[in-house]
Amino acid sequence: MVTSGGDAPGMNAAIRGITRIAHSKNFEVVGFERGWNGLLTNSFRWLTPRSVGGILHLGGTILHTSRCPEFKKNEAIKKAAETLALNNIDGLIVIGGNGSFQGALELSKETGTSIVGVPASIDNDVFGTDETIGFDTAVNTAVSEIDKIRDTAFSLERIFIVEVMGRTRGFLALAVGVTVGSEMILIPEVKYENERIFKTIRESEERGKKSAIIVAAEGIGDTRKLGNEIEKATGTEVRLTVLGYTQRGGNPSARSRLLACLFADKAVELISERHKSSLVVLQNGEIKSMRLEESCKTDKPIDLSLLGLAKILAT
Amino acid sequence: MVTSGGDAPGMNAAIRGITRIAHSKNFEVVGFERGWNGLLTNSFRWLTPRSVGGILHLGGTILHTSRCPEFKKNEAIKKAAETLALNNIDGLIVIGGNGSFQGALELSKETGTSIVGVPASIDNDVFGTDETIGFDTAVNTAVSEIDKIRDTAFSLERIFIVEVMGRTRGFLALAVGVTVGSEMILIPEVKYENERIFKTIRESEERGKKSAIIVAAEGIGDTRKLGNEIEKATGTEVRLTVLGYTQRGGNPSARSRLLACLFADKAVELISERHKSSLVVLQNGEIKSMRLEESCKTDKPIDLSLLGLAKILAT
Amino acid sequence: MVTSGGDAPGMNAAIRGITRIAHSKNFEVVGFERGWNGLLTNSFRWLTPRSVGGILHLGGTILHTSRCPEFKKNEAIKKAAETLALNNIDGLIVIGGNGSFQGALELSKETGTSIVGVPASIDNDVFGTDETIGFDTAVNTAVSEIDKIRDTAFSLERIFIVEVMGRTRGFLALAVGVTVGSEMILIPEVKYENERIFKTIRESEERGKKSAIIVAAEGIGDTRKLGNEIEKATGTEVRLTVLGYTQRGGNPSARSRLLACLFADKAVELISERHKSSLVVLQNGEIKSMRLEESCKTDKPIDLSLLGLAKILAT
Amino acid sequence: MVTSGGDAPGMNAAIRGITRIAHSKNFEVVGFERGWNGLLTNSFRWLTPRSVGGILHLGGTILHTSRCPEFKKNEAIKKAAETLALNNIDGLIVIGGNGSFQGALELSKETGTSIVGVPASIDNDVFGTDETIGFDTAVNTAVSEIDKIRDTAFSLERIFIVEVMGRTRGFLALAVGVTVGSEMILIPEVKYENERIFKTIRESEERGKKSAIIVAAEGIGDTRKLGNEIEKATGTEVRLTVLGYTQRGGNPSARSRLLACLFADKAVELISERHKSSLVVLQNGEIKSMRLEESCKTDKPIDLSLLGLAKILAT
Repeated sequence: MVTSGGDAPGMNAAIRGITRIAHSKNFEVVGFERGWNGLLTNSFRWLTPRSVGGILHLGGTILHTSRCPEFKKNEAIKKAAETLALNNIDGLIVIGGNGSFQGALELSKETGTSIVGVPASIDNDVFGTDETIGFDTAVNTAVSEIDKIRDTAFSLERIFIVEVMGRTRGFLALAVGVTVGSEMILIPEVKYENERIFKTIRESEERGKKSAIIVAAEGIGDTRKLGNEIEKATGTEVRLTVLGYTQRGGNPSARSRLLACLFADKAVELISERHKSSLVVLQNGEIKSMRLEESCKTDKPIDLSLLGLAKILAT
Repeated sequence: MVTSGGDAPGMNAAIRGITRIAHSKNFEVVGFERGWNGLLTNSFRWLTPRSVGGILHLGGTILHTSRCPEFKKNEAIKKAAETLALNNIDGLIVIGGNGSFQGALELSKETGTSIVGVPASIDNDVFGTDETIGFDTAVNTAVSEIDKIRDTAFSLERIFIVEVMGRTRGFLALAVGVTVGSEMILIPEVKYENERIFKTIRESEERGKKSAIIVAAEGIGDTRKLGNEIEKATGTEVRLTVLGYTQRGGNPSARSRLLACLFADKAVELISERHKSSLVVLQNGEIKSMRLEESCKTDKPIDLSLLGLAKILAT
Repeated sequence: MVTSGGDAPGMNAAIRGITRIAHSKNFEVVGFERGWNGLLTNSFRWLTPRSVGGILHLGGTILHTSRCPEFKKNEAIKKAAETLALNNIDGLIVIGGNGSFQGALELSKETGTSIVGVPASIDNDVFGTDETIGFDTAVNTAVSEIDKIRDTAFSLERIFIVEVMGRTRGFLALAVGVTVGSEMILIPEVKYENERIFKTIRESEERGKKSAIIVAAEGIGDTRKLGNEIEKATGTEVRLTVLGYTQRGGNPSARSRLLACLFADKAVELISERHKSSLVVLQNGEIKSMRLEESCKTDKPIDLSLLGLAKILAT
Repeated sequence: MVTSGGDAPGMNAAIRGITRIAHSKNFEVVGFERGWNGLLTNSFRWLTPRSVGGILHLGGTILHTSRCPEFKKNEAIKKAAETLALNNIDGLIVIGGNGSFQGALELSKETGTSIVGVPASIDNDVFGTDETIGFDTAVNTAVSEIDKIRDTAFSLERIFIVEVMGRTRGFLALAVGVTVGSEMILIPEVKYENERIFKTIRESEERGKKSAIIVAAEGIGDTRKLGNEIEKATGTEVRLTVLGYTQRGGNPSARSRLLACLFADKAVELISERHKSSLVVLQNGEIKSMRLEESCKTDKPIDLSLLGLAKILAT
């Protein structure tokens, strides 16, 4: 197996699960190190039920991960395919997000090794699965931190912008915004106009609310500039917090761990059945598989009706 | 609305949600206090969007709750129906668990008021819904605490029994046991024999594990006695922790809050549509409704296949 | 009493403590609202043992707080003195930091009311006290979050800069840096040269460390620019997180609560004894008092020997 | 070095600190495993700055620990002294509590090796030091959990007894009781009569408090029995939670880590100076040393004035 791309809490739970389930089915297991780089340099370690002990509850990934831009080139893909052949590897489980699956799909065209994707990403932006490993943890981390900011918002009666991760997608910002009861949620999928923001804040003040929290995905643009503009328009001081990398780490939540265990089980099953290239997914509460290609070529839709509900809930 | 039975984290989120959504539909909202007692004594307070501010993230229930054994008697039910009539109440939302819904069902037979149940319980034992408000929080609380016990288990190399809540059902113990990687999970739904427990512990030691954590639902019997028997049989010291009421409280997890918001939305919709007696549920990722009676008369099945997976994951 | 300036976790614990202890000595207690503004507008509420129930564990301040720039002007000070006289107030307890005490000192020159300062600030920069209410909480909050970032630092093998609060002083950054084991600590009190930073990072890499965490107080300058320069010089990717307002909020730690209780006890005692203007302090484990003037005119020294220890501890 | 007796959060921070500081002074460092047993069986591992990386924030002890009853016998002490001689060990740092120091004192009589005690215990019962490593963490853990119980206490309006660790001493219960605002604190050092407890609860109810939390050290006797008696006397339902081993584990608090770092620094200094047998202590905010013997033969006094303050604070 390999962990690739940005890390997500629960990756270690998946590593442990895959290793132990695979051993119970008499597979031998290795973990390539530092993402795709491990396949380019044939750098791996043996994984046994004992060597993956004590990691279930730890954030990050013991196999390390990395972004590997050269993995988009054909040469690199071929090198990786050779590494798989060299080591007689029957199946490769790729734990990661969209970028990693794109690479996995390319790789599957150059190798006979069965390839299975396991969605792990705090962004939750993988098409085909309702949830990725790590998403629930990142939401909870952001929520706990914004609960703390709420204390100061209440005491100081100001406006707070909290920037959460999400360069292109707003799944995290949306889930966080609803569950902290933020007065406004800004996501890349929805164009916003400054005037409408000012208006919402003014209406909120008129209803008797003296502080406001705006949750914004990093992908919506320059949040610092937005803060300045709100200050100018409303006359209320605005404070910005960028949660940053705290959202990636931490002990995985129970749900992220459970998902990792269930995905691990399905992934080993798919390897046993020698599927060419597939993805493990959660759909309507059920663990299933889909074609990797289908996930890679489709953008995951976002449920915008939640925005409307959030607005009513923040009245 | 009324909160009834044991409290669960997220009840306040539901109170806030129902109040604000109902107001947006031009309902007036009151909250009866101290569970069914509030209906017996006509004790309630008005709830407005402002008065439910600042409670989304708090455990417990601002309306207070109580067990109300006399609510099984016909006299009490009639008194509650009178209170509803006296105050011209169109719809009553009951936030609670199985016991509360039994009472709600009886009440619905004596009144024309539309009654909607919203499942909130750390036990997750309500038939018809995949999850109750508060369950995810309780699982995470127990998991965080057992992660701490794992530190000592690792350092002292002993066996730890952790008793989690669940007098009759093992949903909480099962979810907790899988996600902390416990070496054994004991739930009321599965008879266990001491000999099998001793054997499992010995096998675990033979595989090189020097500590073990056993997660047990309180309903499986006397955990202190079990600990003594394991000590005698295996010669390894056993320590018991009873997590107790810490599992009921605490800030609700993001998921418990989200569920509370979605259930609130559906509950107000059902009241608007004047359903006689219904229950809001989560089924396969969707918010739906079902007949209250159907839920009340059926025991919720538990997915025992997780026990097998947990066993492999703990190897 | 009044809470003034930036809020700090434990202010509510102090409000509760002062109220209940003062009541036990037969004082009546009021709380002015929104910092000094409350004294300018004669806006206060009565505080009783019951009305301060349930707030001990909450961050922020139920009295609200604000920065009040006009309180530097003589006119405002006189207005505040009039408010004290108007309400026959015997003693005023000011819960806040350096700025608030400067105002309190000015006010004490215009009034016969006994004034006592209670140091509450996440910056811990009040001369005369070893610790302020809220400092321990802020350190723990930052440490928990950096522990999470450490997961990703380990997995992705990059350099992380974490900016913590502290515009002019480095107490928070120093305490946080030592206790998270950061590879470097940058504080306003110590000039740093880029070359030395680059050298330290290179040496750390040579010792086999593949990631590094730099804790920087916000007052050291532009951390984003610093990150870019480190990237250029070392060739390793650098990521920045600005912890921001999460450090101000959250439930107070046990130590911040205890300090609040002990300070409250001493503050009421000083009011009883009608000291003109004094400050409650913790010195070498003992609760004492000192002249407010002495604290106001002196800069608190910082223990730089910790920096040397931190360096050895990070080898 | 060796970690002995019950584990405490921050032991790993001490191991890391001692190793790195000692290396910076050109010592070589080994860690004996499983407490005194490691000295009886000559079982140890080499510790280097790299091998103690990544453990600062982890609870428990990587060296494992154990209770070792045979270490009270002269034969065992002599065996341990032989192990020290065999390995040419100049100095032994013992990280633990009272029991461990008693053993260390005996050992120092049989060996020329310099022995230094580092107080680490959640009980804080070591004479001579104001605080032990791990105490602050245990207090915070218990406080967080009781904050959760408070949610239910508020909602259900009952009485809750929370049993915290402390078989013979009440330092933990006292600190926890004050900082959660418990209505009553029961510690082994103070005899209590049931009648006084009933009276306190009744008075609390008369003041308008509908729930109460009693914090009791495990050493005060059978808390379950006490609960039943309170139920009978007051007519209010009583619920018991036994926090148990959750108090031992978890990531160390900032303060426990800082103390571990400072103690480590002093301990290595004392070894360098070849003190026969000494103890590192915190006294009035300063790190000092004292004779091990003096600590061993004296009971640590407890500050009972806090009980009086707690009573006023809970009015």
